[in-house]
Amino acid sequence: MTATDNLDNQALSSVTAAEARLLIRDGRYQGQTAGLAPGYLQANLAILPQENALDFMRFCQRNPKPCPLVGVSETGDPMLPTLGHDINIRSDVPAYNVYRNGVLDETVNDIADLWRDDFVTFALGCSFTFEHALVKAGIPLWHFQHRKTVPMYRSNIMTRAAGPFGGETVVTMRALHPDKVDEAHEICRRYPLAHGAPLHVGDPGAIGIDDLYQPQWGDVPPPIGDHIPVYWACGVTPQNAIVRARLPLSITHRPGHMLLTDIDEQAEVPVI
Amino acid sequence: MTATDNLDNQALSSVTAAEARLLIRDGRYQGQTAGLAPGYLQANLAILPQENALDFMRFCQRNPKPCPLVGVSETGDPMLPTLGHDINIRSDVPAYNVYRNGVLDETVNDIADLWRDDFVTFALGCSFTFEHALVKAGIPLWHFQHRKTVPMYRSNIMTRAAGPFGGETVVTMRALHPDKVDEAHEICRRYPLAHGAPLHVGDPGAIGIDDLYQPQWGDVPPPIGDHIPVYWACGVTPQNAIVRARLPLSITHRPGHMLLTDIDEQAEVPVI
Repeated sequence: MTATDNLDNQALSSVTAAEARLLIRDGRYQGQTAGLAPGYLQANLAILPQENALDFMRFCQRNPKPCPLVGVSETGDPMLPTLGHDINIRSDVPAYNVYRNGVLDETVNDIADLWRDDFVTFALGCSFTFEHALVKAGIPLWHFQHRKTVPMYRSNIMTRAAGPFGGETVVTMRALHPDKVDEAHEICRRYPLAHGAPLHVGDPGAIGIDDLYQPQWGDVPPPIGDHIPVYWACGVTPQNAIVRARLPLSITHRPGHMLLTDIDEQAEVPVI
Repeated sequence: MTATDNLDNQALSSVTAAEARLLIRDGRYQGQTAGLAPGYLQANLAILPQENALDFMRFCQRNPKPCPLVGVSETGDPMLPTLGHDINIRSDVPAYNVYRNGVLDETVNDIADLWRDDFVTFALGCSFTFEHALVKAGIPLWHFQHRKTVPMYRSNIMTRAAGPFGGETVVTMRALHPDKVDEAHEICRRYPLAHGAPLHVGDPGAIGIDDLYQPQWGDVPPPIGDHIPVYWACGVTPQNAIVRARLPLSITHRPGHMLLTDIDEQAEVPVI
């Protein structure tokens, strides 16, 4: 493959999810998926051995706002037929993080050689879905407008543990005009598969955030001014729980590099 | 316990779910739970060996409308702390169906002597939640008004299988005035933990129902007249899937005799 084979984000903004996945599978696109295949549900990814799968599903069931489960594979089967046509999770995500004993060991673009017969794939809804709904409703989002990554923070809101999975809820923050907070809540409540309504509004200290301008992940937000910080449960929470569990081997998507599904973002259930 | 110790449904209509559970635990109430502890989420129940638990969770994830999972226990632990205070699933449900090799073997009021260290309890949302919302919105329901059981039918809408679990979706039917169908859809869409929006509206034959007046379960509905039959996914679907799986031993609630949780019916997530 030559450098000219690589497509940019713009080139993939007008193709379907299925078409984008094929380009990703062929190694022609390895970038972030924000803005790609608009209208389709994008998903966070966790691949774990079966021995941890029941506990991880319990963890997701008990923490549905940070961990909205949208798909689960058969054990050892790399396909995800309920989420789309011919999805092969070994190759159809632009980049993967490989964790060994809870430490990020490598970032790769294909996991075919790491695949095991006891692996179970979990797909979880992500914030793109409700962000699209907010923007559509005329509620501007700073990180969208400036092509930044939303700031993320470790809160003191504890998850409900299951087996080795637990820890703090990671939250995202979006600053909204005070007039828009209730409407944003109302809109997001309609997307239980995309983190749902905000967890908290206002004082960052109340949920254990010391400094709004020192996020643990993502970009530093601009001065809040006359806006109000609004916090949502974040898909980094399950990644954090997986890291804490120190499994010998686990795989997630590389943050921002999501699975593109064939599910309509507006669908009531994430099953084709 | 003497006969006079037994309380009737009316006596429990003004107590909290936690109070009602204690009366049930003490054997003082063994009846249906419709109308009990108003405002609290009621749940269908499935108790299975751990070896089937991962597949059953997959089945629920792939069929969220008939099988909206609201709680999962630890293996061997009879308590359900995410659903309420001091819920002991061995005694706190009015009546249980015990299946052996897929056949209903006995109906009991306590399962303490059947409990096993490998049992996992699953609680699933039920139709009471959206029915209350419909009635509150001024949409009358025949079976509510006449204290009947909603008619249920085996449809030809197939579930997405997982392991030994699969089969047809069982649906309930409620006849609505044509003017109310859209509003009912809109209301139910807000309750993903209670079967969500209807699966079908109109022609019963289109979903494999031969005769609206011969339901497989529940009461025969009155002539449809100028109303339209509206069909929702039903919690008998997972019971049906469990029966089909012919597990050596599985336990469900006795239909109509649900688990009363401490979760607010309007709650976004089913976790206290």
